[in-house]
Amino acid sequence: MTRPRLEFWFEFASTYSYPAAMRIEAAAQKADIGIAWRPFLLGPLLKSQQGLTDSPFNLVAEKGAYMWRDVARICASYGLEFKKPSAFPRNGLAAARIVQATLGEDWTLDFIKTVYRANFVRDLDIGDPGMLAACVIEVGGDPVAALAAAETRQTKQALRDATVEAARKGLFGSPSFVTEDGELFWGNDRLDDAIAWAAKAANRPPEP
Amino acid sequence: MTRPRLEFWFEFASTYSYPAAMRIEAAAQKADIGIAWRPFLLGPLLKSQQGLTDSPFNLVAEKGAYMWRDVARICASYGLEFKKPSAFPRNGLAAARIVQATLGEDWTLDFIKTVYRANFVRDLDIGDPGMLAACVIEVGGDPVAALAAAETRQTKQALRDATVEAARKGLFGSPSFVTEDGELFWGNDRLDDAIAWAAKAANRPPEP
Repeated sequence: MTRPRLEFWFEFASTYSYPAAMRIEAAAQKADIGIAWRPFLLGPLLKSQQGLTDSPFNLVAEKGAYMWRDVARICASYGLEFKKPSAFPRNGLAAARIVQATLGEDWTLDFIKTVYRANFVRDLDIGDPGMLAACVIEVGGDPVAALAAAETRQTKQALRDATVEAARKGLFGSPSFVTEDGELFWGNDRLDDAIAWAAKAANRPPEP
Repeated sequence: MTRPRLEFWFEFASTYSYPAAMRIEAAAQKADIGIAWRPFLLGPLLKSQQGLTDSPFNLVAEKGAYMWRDVARICASYGLEFKKPSAFPRNGLAAARIVQATLGEDWTLDFIKTVYRANFVRDLDIGDPGMLAACVIEVGGDPVAALAAAETRQTKQALRDATVEAARKGLFGSPSFVTEDGELFWGNDRLDDAIAWAAKAANRPPEP
């Protein structure tokens, strides 16, 4: 039997995606689920679906105030460090392209987590190519090759295609999870539900 | 030691508030927490905070599609009946006034749950006074007295005051929970966290 796969869709600017990215490997391993890491850009979806050109957390003060408190509480409950960044949202485009270009490298998952920590623990500008090169180095990758691969026409198109695919699958926020049978789960607090669904769906008897 | 109290703020039109209303008594009893049931109107907050005159679930198709699926999944997981209502959002004003006017009656909590079931299981118009009278009768209350009390100047003002208080406490959605030490939790999926926080806060040593 093939191991079930769960798509994990993440935007680097997204606060709630940080704890999800840090937790998902352990949760998936425990349930014997494979994770397909899917970088995408939330900005184009917020614009096309809601006409927004900034984060809802900046546009609605009450939502923003709640989110910062909630994320701090959530990270504390997981024992994750968290520091409210001095700029929000930061531009996740360059980092997402690096991930898109290097999925399959043995350092890419560490890179993802390092970028999230850069944004939400170390308060560093993850939109800056020099910073991203430093993150690649930190996890043992080749920064010149990674940044070059990130800027190819093919990579740029692949990330655009991923964002279109995300919209087609009903995504409107990050993190999101999509099971093989097409169930969408949104939010860090749905990670466990998504994994449970993926495991359950895989145990279904084959269709007659 | 006084039993800690948790405020449960609810809007009758809100889908996610339905499972929260059905679950909160058992969860609170288990943790030995008292619940202060606080009806309020979400519409005025959506308008003043976000300029919205309809539910975000109607205004953003992707959010709406996800919400209906998510609420159905959630209710199934709790063993709660759920039927997508033929009209959404329904007007919760009259029902909220009845609750505001009758808090403390021995039938009021049953009334709240009956109204949520009317909206989200029986697909009935909870904005209709006749329907609400029937709900009052169903739980053993006096419908004439209840509807009269709901329409007094004092009750109307008390519900307006409650909505102002909700805004002051940072609310922007329903269901919301506020602990005695001022922590705000939003969403049915934060009910357990809110109860745990309320219980923990109560066990703190007194301030010196």
